[in-house]
This record gives sequence, C-alpha cells and structure tokens, in this order.
Amino acid sequence: MTFILLSFILTLMGKLWSGRFKEETEKTVEDFTESVSFDARLWKHDIQGSIAHVKMLARRKIISKKDADLIIKGLNGIAARIESGKFRFRKDLEDVHMNIEHALIKKVGPAGGKIHTGRSRNDQVALDIRLYLRDGTREIIKLIKAFQRAIVSAAEKNIDIVMPGYTHLQRAQPVLLSHHLLAYYEMLERDRGRFEDCLKRVNVLPLGSAALAGTTFPIDRKYVAGLLKFPAISENSIDAVSDRDFVIEFISASALLMTHLSRLSEEFILWNSEEFGFIELPDAFTTGSSIMPQKKNPDVLELTRGKTGRVVGDLVSVLTVMKGLPLAYNRDMQEDKEPLFDTMDTVMACLLILTKMMPRIRFRPGNMERAAAAGFSTATDIAEYLVKKGMPFREAHHTTGKIVQYCIEKNRTLMELDLETMKRFSKLISEDIFRCMSVDMSIEGKQSVGGTSGKMVRARIRKIRNKR
Amino acid sequence: MTFILLSFILTLMGKLWSGRFKEETEKTVEDFTESVSFDARLWKHDIQGSIAHVKMLARRKIISKKDADLIIKGLNGIAARIESGKFRFRKDLEDVHMNIEHALIKKVGPAGGKIHTGRSRNDQVALDIRLYLRDGTREIIKLIKAFQRAIVSAAEKNIDIVMPGYTHLQRAQPVLLSHHLLAYYEMLERDRGRFEDCLKRVNVLPLGSAALAGTTFPIDRKYVAGLLKFPAISENSIDAVSDRDFVIEFISASALLMTHLSRLSEEFILWNSEEFGFIELPDAFTTGSSIMPQKKNPDVLELTRGKTGRVVGDLVSVLTVMKGLPLAYNRDMQEDKEPLFDTMDTVMACLLILTKMMPRIRFRPGNMERAAAAGFSTATDIAEYLVKKGMPFREAHHTTGKIVQYCIEKNRTLMELDLETMKRFSKLISEDIFRCMSVDMSIEGKQSVGGTSGKMVRARIRKIRNKR
Amino acid sequence: MTFILLSFILTLMGKLWSGRFKEETEKTVEDFTESVSFDARLWKHDIQGSIAHVKMLARRKIISKKDADLIIKGLNGIAARIESGKFRFRKDLEDVHMNIEHALIKKVGPAGGKIHTGRSRNDQVALDIRLYLRDGTREIIKLIKAFQRAIVSAAEKNIDIVMPGYTHLQRAQPVLLSHHLLAYYEMLERDRGRFEDCLKRVNVLPLGSAALAGTTFPIDRKYVAGLLKFPAISENSIDAVSDRDFVIEFISASALLMTHLSRLSEEFILWNSEEFGFIELPDAFTTGSSIMPQKKNPDVLELTRGKTGRVVGDLVSVLTVMKGLPLAYNRDMQEDKEPLFDTMDTVMACLLILTKMMPRIRFRPGNMERAAAAGFSTATDIAEYLVKKGMPFREAHHTTGKIVQYCIEKNRTLMELDLETMKRFSKLISEDIFRCMSVDMSIEGKQSVGGTSGKMVRARIRKIRNKR
Amino acid sequence: MTFILLSFILTLMGKLWSGRFKEETEKTVEDFTESVSFDARLWKHDIQGSIAHVKMLARRKIISKKDADLIIKGLNGIAARIESGKFRFRKDLEDVHMNIEHALIKKVGPAGGKIHTGRSRNDQVALDIRLYLRDGTREIIKLIKAFQRAIVSAAEKNIDIVMPGYTHLQRAQPVLLSHHLLAYYEMLERDRGRFEDCLKRVNVLPLGSAALAGTTFPIDRKYVAGLLKFPAISENSIDAVSDRDFVIEFISASALLMTHLSRLSEEFILWNSEEFGFIELPDAFTTGSSIMPQKKNPDVLELTRGKTGRVVGDLVSVLTVMKGLPLAYNRDMQEDKEPLFDTMDTVMACLLILTKMMPRIRFRPGNMERAAAAGFSTATDIAEYLVKKGMPFREAHHTTGKIVQYCIEKNRTLMELDLETMKRFSKLISEDIFRCMSVDMSIEGKQSVGGTSGKMVRARIRKIRNKR
Repeated sequence: MTFILLSFILTLMGKLWSGRFKEETEKTVEDFTESVSFDARLWKHDIQGSIAHVKMLARRKIISKKDADLIIKGLNGIAARIESGKFRFRKDLEDVHMNIEHALIKKVGPAGGKIHTGRSRNDQVALDIRLYLRDGTREIIKLIKAFQRAIVSAAEKNIDIVMPGYTHLQRAQPVLLSHHLLAYYEMLERDRGRFEDCLKRVNVLPLGSAALAGTTFPIDRKYVAGLLKFPAISENSIDAVSDRDFVIEFISASALLMTHLSRLSEEFILWNSEEFGFIELPDAFTTGSSIMPQKKNPDVLELTRGKTGRVVGDLVSVLTVMKGLPLAYNRDMQEDKEPLFDTMDTVMACLLILTKMMPRIRFRPGNMERAAAAGFSTATDIAEYLVKKGMPFREAHHTTGKIVQYCIEKNRTLMELDLETMKRFSKLISEDIFRCMSVDMSIEGKQSVGGTSGKMVRARIRKIRNKR
Repeated sequence: MTFILLSFILTLMGKLWSGRFKEETEKTVEDFTESVSFDARLWKHDIQGSIAHVKMLARRKIISKKDADLIIKGLNGIAARIESGKFRFRKDLEDVHMNIEHALIKKVGPAGGKIHTGRSRNDQVALDIRLYLRDGTREIIKLIKAFQRAIVSAAEKNIDIVMPGYTHLQRAQPVLLSHHLLAYYEMLERDRGRFEDCLKRVNVLPLGSAALAGTTFPIDRKYVAGLLKFPAISENSIDAVSDRDFVIEFISASALLMTHLSRLSEEFILWNSEEFGFIELPDAFTTGSSIMPQKKNPDVLELTRGKTGRVVGDLVSVLTVMKGLPLAYNRDMQEDKEPLFDTMDTVMACLLILTKMMPRIRFRPGNMERAAAAGFSTATDIAEYLVKKGMPFREAHHTTGKIVQYCIEKNRTLMELDLETMKRFSKLISEDIFRCMSVDMSIEGKQSVGGTSGKMVRARIRKIRNKR
Repeated sequence: MTFILLSFILTLMGKLWSGRFKEETEKTVEDFTESVSFDARLWKHDIQGSIAHVKMLARRKIISKKDADLIIKGLNGIAARIESGKFRFRKDLEDVHMNIEHALIKKVGPAGGKIHTGRSRNDQVALDIRLYLRDGTREIIKLIKAFQRAIVSAAEKNIDIVMPGYTHLQRAQPVLLSHHLLAYYEMLERDRGRFEDCLKRVNVLPLGSAALAGTTFPIDRKYVAGLLKFPAISENSIDAVSDRDFVIEFISASALLMTHLSRLSEEFILWNSEEFGFIELPDAFTTGSSIMPQKKNPDVLELTRGKTGRVVGDLVSVLTVMKGLPLAYNRDMQEDKEPLFDTMDTVMACLLILTKMMPRIRFRPGNMERAAAAGFSTATDIAEYLVKKGMPFREAHHTTGKIVQYCIEKNRTLMELDLETMKRFSKLISEDIFRCMSVDMSIEGKQSVGGTSGKMVRARIRKIRNKR
Repeated sequence: MTFILLSFILTLMGKLWSGRFKEETEKTVEDFTESVSFDARLWKHDIQGSIAHVKMLARRKIISKKDADLIIKGLNGIAARIESGKFRFRKDLEDVHMNIEHALIKKVGPAGGKIHTGRSRNDQVALDIRLYLRDGTREIIKLIKAFQRAIVSAAEKNIDIVMPGYTHLQRAQPVLLSHHLLAYYEMLERDRGRFEDCLKRVNVLPLGSAALAGTTFPIDRKYVAGLLKFPAISENSIDAVSDRDFVIEFISASALLMTHLSRLSEEFILWNSEEFGFIELPDAFTTGSSIMPQKKNPDVLELTRGKTGRVVGDLVSVLTVMKGLPLAYNRDMQEDKEPLFDTMDTVMACLLILTKMMPRIRFRPGNMERAAAAGFSTATDIAEYLVKKGMPFREAHHTTGKIVQYCIEKNRTLMELDLETMKRFSKLISEDIFRCMSVDMSIEGKQSVGGTSGKMVRARIRKIRNKR
C-alpha cells in the first residue's frame, strides 16, 4: 500500500497544488512563474528550516519520532547531494521548496508527505530569506570590518603624508592623507551600524504563520526559534507573510554603502589620473586597452562606481514591487529575490576586492605635497591669524581675499610675499604670519577634535584600535 | 570708526565671499544657485546652533563675553522677527545662514562679524539639517505612535468581526478584522524602530569641523554638544562636512513607511468599493465628482498611495546626487534639502490624516462575514482535520482539493455536503468535520502564537497596551 | 615561422592587452571584471559586425582578400559551433569579443590577428549592442502588435457586454467592456510609437570610431553601414563610444509599457476576485496554493505587475551609472548590459504570455451588467438631461446630487423613483427621463468621438482593422 | 430670480460636488487634497482650453451665442487679473479649474455655470497639462538649439586646440577640443529628437472624453482640436483620462538630457580643477567660499550635475505613482504635476545657464596641449604604423606595448627614443615613424568619418551650419 500511495503522491507532485486543475499548465507559464532558477540558492536555509520544523512537529507529537528521524535523515542526504553538485533542480517543480520536498518523498516515502504539516510556502519562504539574509548580513559586517582595517592600516602606514583637501574639487586646505582616508572609516562605521540595526529586524522567526492565519496544529514556535537561534518571533501571522521590510531595509543599507564606495572609487580614479598623479594602482587591479598599450585603467574602481547604480536600481525595484500591494502574500513578492541576491553578490564582491586592493595602492607623496603647497591653500590660516590678532572674522576674511587677489595679479605665491607688502593689507600683520602660512603649520594647527592635525589623527587611530 | 567698518562690512555682505571677484554675479546665476527660497525653513535651527556656538566662543575667550551677549540678543531678536513674519529673506543673500548673519551685523554692528569665527557654512549647514532632522524624526515617531494607537483602538472596537483573509486577492482563510488591522501595527512598529535607529546617527554634532579640516581656534566641541544635547560628536572633520547619510537613511525609512501606508490605502480603497463593501469612509475624508454626484471618492487614500511614489522619487534623487561625489563638500549637496523637506512634509501629512480618519471609518461586518463564509475559505481546515486523523499532509491536501472540485461542479458550498458524500472522499471523515468547517471554529482554532484566534489577538493587544 | 608566431600570439591572448604588465591579474579581479558570463549573448551580433568589418578592410585593401576570406570562414565556423552549443566561453578571456577573436586566431592562424585592425572594443561593443537592440526592438514591436490584435479580438468577441466604468475605483458610468479593453490598445499604440522612434536612434552605425578618435586606416564606414543595413552613421567618434542613450531610451520605453501592463494586470486581478467576479482566468494561467486547494491564483498577472518594478529598477540603474561620467568610454558602462538584457527578456516574456492568455479569459457578462446597473451609474445622464432641458450645468449637477441623496436615504435605486417624486426636484423633468436613466441608453448616448457607444466602438475597431 | 440662482450656485461652489455631503470637509483634508498651490500655474492653459470649449458649445448650439460671449469675455477678464497679480487663488476651491470657474460665475452670473457642460475635470486637466507640456516642450527644444549653437560657436572659436582624449579618465589619444565639444552637440541632437517625438504624443486633444465615457452632448471635438491646433484627437475616452504617458515620456527625455548635462558638468568641473587647468570659468558663474577666499567654485556646474538626481527622482515618482493603477482616473494621478513642473523648471534653468556660460569659458590651450603631448598618447599611432608596414594588428599592438614599457623603465618619452633603439623592437620601423608619433600628425591622421582630424571636424561644423 505504501508503494501505491507513494507513486500516487509523486504523480501529483508534478504540481503539488494541481488537484482541481484539468488543463495542463502550459510550458510558457511554467517558465514565466518558476523561481527555482534563482531561489535554488536558498537550499541550505530551506533544509535548515525544515529540520527545525520537523523536530518541533515530533516534539509536539504532531508527527511520530520515527517519521521525523526519517525525514531529517532524508533532508541531510539531499543536502549532501546538492553540496556535491549531484542534485538536479527541476523547473517543472517550480521552486526550491517543492524540489526538495519532492526529492524527500521520493527518498523516504509517504513520511515525506508530512513535512509540510502546519506550515505553508508563505511562511517557509519568509523563513528561508531571513535565514539567508542573516548569514549574508553577518558576512557583510565582517567584510566591512576587514575593509575598515585595511583603511586604518593604510592611514597608519602613510600617516604624515600631506595632501590638498578639496571642496568643489578645488584645493581648499592642506590635510593629512591619513585623515582623508579615515573619513571612509567613519562612513563604513555608520554602514556597519545600519546593517546591525537591520539584523535586529531580520532576526525574527516567521515560521508558524502558515498561509496567513496561523495553524490549528499545536505547534511550538518558541522551540523552533530556539533551534534556529532567533531571539524573537513574529507577532502577527498576516504581517509575517506579507512583510518584505527586511529585504528593502537591507538593500537600502547596501545602496548607502555602495554610495560610499562610489565616492572612494571616484576619488581614486581621479588620483590615478595623470593630472592628479596621487596614486599608482597595482597592476593586478587595472587592465590595459586593446588598442592603447600604455594605459593602466582603473577598471575595478570604475566597476565599483558603476555597480552603485545597480544596487540603487535593485532598491527601486523592490520598493516599486511592494507599493500598493494588498495583504497578505501576492505573487509579485517573488520579484524580491533577484534584486536581493544581486545586491548581496555586488556588495560582497566590491568590499572584498577593495579590501584586497587597498594595501597595494602606492601613494605618491611628492605629487600630493606639491599640490597641497600650491594654490593658496593656507589662506584660511591667514584669516584665522588676523582674527586672533583682533580683527572681526568677516573683515579678516575679506582682507585675506585681497591678499590672494594681489598674489594672483602679481603671479606670486603667498610665501613669496615680503612682510612689507603684507603689512600694506593690515597693520596687524607681523613676522609670525609666515609660520602660519606653511602647510605643515596649517595642518598641525587643526587641533580641534576631529581635525586634521597629526595629533588628532593619531588619537583617532588609537581609539579605533582600542575599540576592536 | 565702528560706523565706517560696519558699512564697509555690510557692503561686502552682498556676497560675503566676493572679495576677489570683479564681475558682478549675474541675476540668472543668483536665481540658479540661491537656496534661501527653500532653506529658510531651517532658520530656527540655524539660530539655535549659532547661539550655542557663540556661547562656546565666549567661554573659550575666542570672543569677548560682551560681544557674545550682543550677538545672542541680536539673534533672539531676529528669531522673534522671523517668527512674527516680519523678516524678509533676500535671494541675493543666497541662503538662510547669510540672511541671518547679514541681519545680525546690521543690527549689532561689527561684533556680528565675529559669529562665523571657527566655523564654516559647511559644518553650519550640516548642523542645521541634523537639528531639523532630529526634531522632525522625533515628531514622526510621535505620529507613528498616534497612528498605532488609532489602529489598536479600531482593532479593539471591532475585535470579533470576521472577514476573509486574502492571498493573491483571492479569499484564502477567514481571519479577524482586528487581526488584519494589527498587521499594520506591526509594520509601523518596525518603522518606528528604523526611525529611532536613524536618530542615533543623526544625533551627532558636526560643528567644529569648519570647512573640512577643523580649525586652529581653541574651540570646545563637547561643550557645544552639551548645549545642543548631542550625545556624540563627529570624529573626522572631512567626513562630517561630506556626509549626508542621515538624509538618505531618513528618506529610506520614510519610503518604507510610505510603502506600508500605500498598502493600507490600497486595501481601504478596495474595501470602500461597491464590490467589496467592507467599509464606509467618513464623508469628510472623501470627495465627490464634478460630474457624478453619487460618488464618494477615497481621495485621501489615493493621494497617500500616490505620495509613496513621491518619497521613493526623493530617495532616488538624493542617492543619485551623492553617487560618485569626491570629498569633501560639493555644491551638488545643496540638492539634498528639497527632497528631505518634501519627504518630511509628506510623511507627516499622511500619518496625521490617516490617524484622524481611522476612528471614523465605519466597518460593515455583514458584508465581511458573508464574504468570509463563501468561497471554500475553510478548505485548509479540512486538510488539517484529515492530517490530525492520520493522513499525510500532502495526501490530505490533495483529498481536500477533490472535495472542493466536487462542490464547484455541483455548485454547492462545503456546508451543504452531507456526511455520506464526504466519506466518499476519505474514510477518515466523520461527523466532527462539520465543526471544523465553520468560519468561527476555523478562526478560533488558530491558536498558534501570532495566529488569528480571538485569544491570540486579545493577548497581542494586551501586550501592546502594557508596553506603552 | 607562422607556427611560432601563432603560438606566440595565442600566449599573449590570455590577456590581449597584457604587454606591459608584470604581475598576474588576480583571479578575484578576473571574476570581478569579466563580462562574458552575460555578454556572450551578443555573439551573433559580434560575428555579424566582424564579418562586415572584414569585408570592408579587404575592399579598402587594408587586409588581403585571402586573409578576409579566411577570417570570414573562421567566423562562420565559430558561429556554427556556438549555435550548436559546442563553444566554451572562457572567463579568463574576459568578454565575448576576446573569446571569439581568440578562437579565430586559434583556428585561422596569424590572419586572425588582423581582424581588429581599425577598430577598438569601444566601437565594437557599441555596434554589438545596437545590432542586438535593433533586433530586439523589432521583435518587441511585433509582440506589441500581436497583443494588440488579441485585445481587438477580445473586444470584438465581447463587443456589447456592459460593465461599470470606474473612477477612484468607484462605479462612475456604464461603459462597454470592449471600449474598456480598447483603452489598452491605445496605450500599446503609443508604446509601439515610442519603440519605433527609439529605433531611429538605435539604427546608427558607431563602428569606425575606434577607441575614441577615429582611425588612420582608410576605412569606409558607409560601406559597412550598407552591409549592416544602418541608414545612418555616427558623426562624432567621441560621442559614438561614450553614448548609451539608446539603452536608456529603450528601457524608458519599456518601463512605460510595463506600467501599462501593470495596470491591465491590476484590473484583471481585481476582476478575477470573488468580489468583482468579472472574469475567470484559464486554469493554465493560474496556480493553486500549497495549502488552500480551492484557490485560483492569478500568478501570471501578479508577476507581470511585479516585474514592472524590475524594469523601473533597470532604468534607474543605467541612469545612475551614466550620471556624471566624463567622456569617453569608462568601464562603468559595462554595467549597461545586464539591465538591458533583463528588460528585454522581461518585456518579451510579459507580452508573450499576456497575448496567449487574452483569448482564453472568460468574461462574465452577468456580473458585469449587474454591477453596471447598480450604484447610480447613470446619474450623470440625468444631469445632462436637465442641461438639455435648459438648466445650467452646475445647477443640474447639484439637482442630480439631491436626487441621488434622496435615493440613498430611502434605500431606492433611480429606476424605482416615480415621476411625481422626480418632479419635486425639478419641473423640467418629464416622462422621458426614464429612458435616459437606463444603462443601455446611457451607453448608446455617448456618441462623441472616442465615446463608449457601440457605434463609436465599432467605428474604432473598423479603423484599426483597416490600418493593418 | 437670476440673482437668487447666482448666490445659490456660488454658495454651493465652496465645494462644487458637495451636494450629498452632510459633514463639513475638514481643514486638514482640504490642505491634503488641494492642488491649487501648485496647479495654479496651469491657469493660462485652463482658460485657453475653456474658451475653445465654449466656442464649440455655442457653434453646436449647446449653449447660446450670448452666453458664450459672456463667458469668453469673463474668462479674458480673469486672465487679465491673474496676469496682473490681482487674482487670489483659494485653497478651499481646491484646484485651478474650480478657482477660475468660481470667479467666472461670480463675474458673469448663471451663464458661467454652463461652461462645464459636456466636459469633466478629468478631461479638462488632461487638456491643460497637454497644452502646458506642448508649450514647455517647444520652449525646451528652442533652448536645446540655443545651447547647441553655443557649443558649435565654442568649437569653431577654438577649432585647432589640441587636448588629450580620455578613456577611463586616462589619457588615451590626442583629440581636438572642438571635436570633444561637438560630442555634446550630438547628444543634444538626440535629445532634441526625443522631445520632438514626445511632442507627437503630447499633441493630441483629450477634451470631449468627459469623465471617462464620452458625453451625450453633440460636441464637435475636431473643431476644438482645430481651435487649439491639435493635429489629432484621442480615440478612446477611457484611455484619454487615464493616460499620463506624455508626462512620463517628457520626464524620461528630460532625465536623459540631464544625464548629458551632468557629464558636461563633470568634465568642466574636472577641467576647472588646478590639476587639469584646462579651463577658467567666468567669475560671474562661480562662487567663492565663506572661509577660503581664493576659491573659484564651479557651483553652477555642480548644481547642474546634482539636479540630474532631481529629475531622475521625478521620473521614478511618476512611474511609481502610475504603476498598478486601475482605469480610469484615480486621485493618485494628481501627484503627476509637481514632478512635471519641477522637471520643466529644472531643465529650462540648466539649459539657459549653461548656454549663457559657454561663450564665457576661457580655454587654456597651453595646459591642454602639454597634457596631450605627455603620456604616450600616440602609442596607438605606432601600432597602426606597424600594421601598415605589414605586421598583424595583435602583434603590432604587443610590440608597441613593449616600446612603451621600455620608455617607462628608462623614464623617457617616445620622442626621445632614437631610431636604433626603435629598430630593436621591430625591423619594420624606419625614419618615418617619428612623423606618426607627433600629436599633430596623430590628430590629422584621423580622417575616418566622425574622426578628430581638423578636416572632419570642419566638415561636421559646415554640415551643422547648413542644416539650420
């Protein structure tokens, strides 16, 4: 009898829900609606969730201990087969869940037909994505930290190199390269915080919500949560199966992270140009041209910058998908997965490659310092000097402007002016002004917290090192 | 002398930075670059920040106590004038900061020219936005809570009304209306969490970063942070003036919130249709048609749904603006404000109006219950019944499908089948099946945590009430 | 010698541009920068373009006729191998262009090394995408026409079915189902126009622009354009390799088309609900639920609606990628391909499946007509009646409102009012008012061009049929 | 009697559709739903459309000639009052249409109540936007042409200046500045084409579709189309009031145009940096810094680049608004206007200011030429030289790479190598190689159509001049 039942169930598994349909589902429809071509990557989390579910079913005596053992053994066997590449996912079985359940029933017989007791694909897929996202987010947090370490190391290694700080891509004031690099550390620190906050809301068990209303089986959701290490369980079954906040929040955090990486990329692309000449990228991270052999193209950086658009697009996709959907589950929500996977892959790949590249970038202190010294970059220091001598800020600012204008007209640098000339602009000026106009003094003077002086930068690095 | 200096400074305040320019800035350019037409709304926070800054300058003896008092008095006077609508913001003074500083110098004389000592518009505007955003975010959190209260009240008031739960906009299983409404409570709870998390990163003092490098004045940033109640100060001056993460994160959280409101709106629009007939909207919140007098159009809900697009657009705007910008400040960043303000206004208005509308919606239990009873909505309960009698889930699911198909062919409801007929589908079926097929029993059976039974819904409401 | 040269060239083809690099390109970098995993789909157009290029090179005697023949034969052989699935694309050869060129050299020897004379990958890839897009766009235009035909057929088949026309999802006025369906014909007609306009700008030959500056070889671009059937050639070499307008314009047109399909999907999902009951979807185009066997879920429509988000996301991706890129080619532009391919596949699949589904939808005239008759849907006709009797429109509108309000209070329909009662609202009302209040008369009265009367709808269908 | 009727109608005009409502519309709702604060800008087109409509009504004897004259005179009077700033738009009258109609009735009495005969706000607003958009689009086309002229003039004025052409922001090959500038001419030419194509679909009369079904009045749509100079009329009344394609297509074309302007801006910002030093921006189009008086910030360019994000955001807004909306009019569609107006203003302002700035940019040929000569930019020419001497392209490319690598190692330029050394790399090299390595010869050699040689650039300019 078991055999007859088994073949009967397997026949109907072609489409598990096909009981009432007379017409054959057309091939086109199958191709249009299947998701296994992309959700197969959830297999590990699907099996992980199923095992926890089955353990609970047995514990609550909804199924027998024997059936549970059989199922778990079967699932582990399937996992091994997938791992080794021997498992063939079938599109006609629609999604990862049905593929695994079908294989299970084929392997362990009718007992396999009990695995779906007290759950639905609606809460099952929500669980799978959350498990996947939890792992992925943790991995990204690790990658962020690794990239932060690479940045701090680069800052330390090049701690006293001077460069021009820019606003509006105009040289503004001299800063330390290390200080500039650490700006990215701070951005990444906020990114890390966002992913950790996101994780709180990802880390909630939806299983047990069934299709949308909960179930009449005496399930134990807290037990499952414990097995799967979820600190919380969802409090409303309708919300649990309608919710894709975690996907959107994750992609939002990613879009912001990518924006940071795009800014870093833009800067390094500029610095790598012949015009700036601030860095030399490692050969292994650039490519040449098919027709211009002298080029060292910063492809990795350009692609990172470009991939920002990709993640912003993913974000818009999921927001647009979810906009205006009535509760609870709608098939539109299947469109959450590809943008999520694409974002996950993109963010990981970009963080990884930038982390590898960072220590191999060669900074060119000569060019940076020359640029920092040129261009009246210490004009602000003159203004501050005048204020300290008693001039109101606005007047000091105006006076400094006049000095700079004079230099431009006479084609001189600030350092080339003599005291006599300087005094013509204000009687408050004396010999000590030359000290404040040097690039080094300008930098060392910035001792406000967060400022660019070597003292403050070193203090920040110490603080970062101690935190870890 | 003071008078001469004053008029001199005021003359140059036309454009505060115009020292070196010979040409007049064209009117077109002025119109193109000015921001006071939209950033004037930051005036309160600008003055608040300036007062704290001036107090610190005096405390650190960078300016005299007397000048500080004069400035503070002046600023308070300006605040009073703006409050009362008597202050005229001038486009030729470019932005809110310059308008206020100009008015200050005009009012208190040269001392006013000292207010900008040790700061720059770059850190000043970052401060203003953060102060504005802190207030706004807190207000939104309050509005979310108020809306949540309105939802919980509506749920309580209508606690036992039965309605169909939907998936794919198909009736799936009966649920309690209160349970359905509470799904939105949960969404909003996550929204609230996101705004609170966002607040942590907003609530950081950028002032003291000056243009980008810090300052040589012996400022005390922690003192300013204390005055302005910032628990943290920014740790890198370049990052502090380049960062607009807080704007993006805020709009991201808003886009997700709006997505939730769009789903609520969509549902209520459906429910308000003649076809569903689940609710009647209050007259005050609907409008009629210019040509069809019988209409009660759910405009408020439609606009809320539509405004979701607006906020998603705002998010894309700011992300696109920031993508690929080199450090530190670039004028592109001025384009952060209008999307931010637009999002703030939109989110507040939508939350407010939905909160006002919620208690005035009339639910129509008769229609809801009729719909819940029709359409085989307890089919799942039959399947679960069969499983409990010993049938494997997949077989039970298939058998139930056959029963439903039979009903459809014979044009009967489940309740209209007799036991004899039922037994033909499975010998496991006995008299007690009729109990499980009733809508009420179906709902009451869902006692899993988060399920739709009255017991669980009441428990959830109790828990929510206690938390507050 | 030839043999030595050949193996020498093949060795260096590992990376064609690797001449000056000492370090090995890391595997990670290779994975990060390769594009063959997605651009392999351009193979046919790559070979098509190369053959035309080679013919021109021979004609202009830049290479010998013998070499050209060898190369063309080689390329055709490669095409055959790819077609039959025997060609293995290698990631370490980076992209489709290098894979094919490498295979060519391996096959035909040193002559193969001449194919890239007078061109660059920059103009080559621009050509390939344009050829691909030209084919794809033409295919989409065909699919749009097919879908339009399906719509017109459905309209014709159901020409006289009456349904409620909606505004604000409130029943507004009765309309013909055929008229409603034809609204989508008009939308698609505009879509078709946009794709055709887009095609004009796609259909321009970029080849011959080389890397960015043109070439010193005496190439003949017009000859190549003729071979590849391009009516125009690009006029500026820098623009030609920097331009991705055609990709963006194509995705824009697609996003708008998808928006139309999302509206159709939304409507059919509503109509397929138990509450509306206006249509029954064919079994083959719906799916069931894993736990609720009675469901007929409109998955195809939901997915189409959801996939709109996908295409909007693709559009945002490419716009964000291109924003702020300096000329000429930057590697960011490689990120144009996946969104383009994704949009192409999505649009084609959605059009195809909706076209297949349309003729199999069963409309349910009874439910539609019942809904059209209920709900005061002819109120507007009363107002127009009064105007025709001499009442100013605004007053007529107000009077009609009063009549409707009276009906609602007395719980009657318009048709249930007697003449006496009617006359109380206006003395202008006489017996003939009952004619104008019937649904059929309401519809037949709309004889303005584009109106919903059967006469106008039939006229429109005739006009459409004649055009084709 | 007339007077009584008049005051009666005016009373009810508070809300024209308020007939059946008992409750007062709350102030909050009024603020939330009103659109006159932004749609007032449509007043001119609203009146223009109304006058045409009224003329037709009289011609078709739907209203009397006398009434029509009265109404037209009234409307012209209102137009004059609005023009002169004396008209007060009232939020409680909701939108521009109601404000004008209300003023009309107040002015001309009951006859004014006849203006809305045979139309609805649904087709009225569609008409207004189309008229507005038609004017705006034509204006933008003019602005594009003006900017193109400015570009061509700049190209002509600087026709022979040499600069480095870039790929990957690496110097690739020398090009003419004029050629580079003309690349933007080509982009704008496509933009112009897109706006013109868009105009075809904008330029269709929707009036006469009434609420959604057409009207029973014997209107003459073709006559109205003639009066308003529409070459076509909409063919389906439901589509006509549901359609916002024209808004989306216009914003799409604008987003692409802005992307081009963002690229131009990015380049000019780079060129304006001290590092590039390729241009000097006119003082009138830059601003200084509040703290760094030496700066010349390219604010206009930065804002243009930033405003690209704004328009992309507008596009996403409207697409998101329209996604999944059932037919016909829904109030969500009111959210189309602000993005449309914002895009219109932004595009016009950016085009205008760039056109003004272009002729005042000072190019710095010295710096450009120095950069073009450095960096092995003629390496490709060596490769092409070798090919012409008989070496297969791939080998020539490799050989050139070796020469460049040698130069880098020996720290020499190509021009510093002697013939002896050169010959070591290939025996095909002879004296004439030095000619092909010069920047000028490199440029002049690019005589392929669209190439950068002076001959081709001049030919292109001639062709452009002749076209106009």
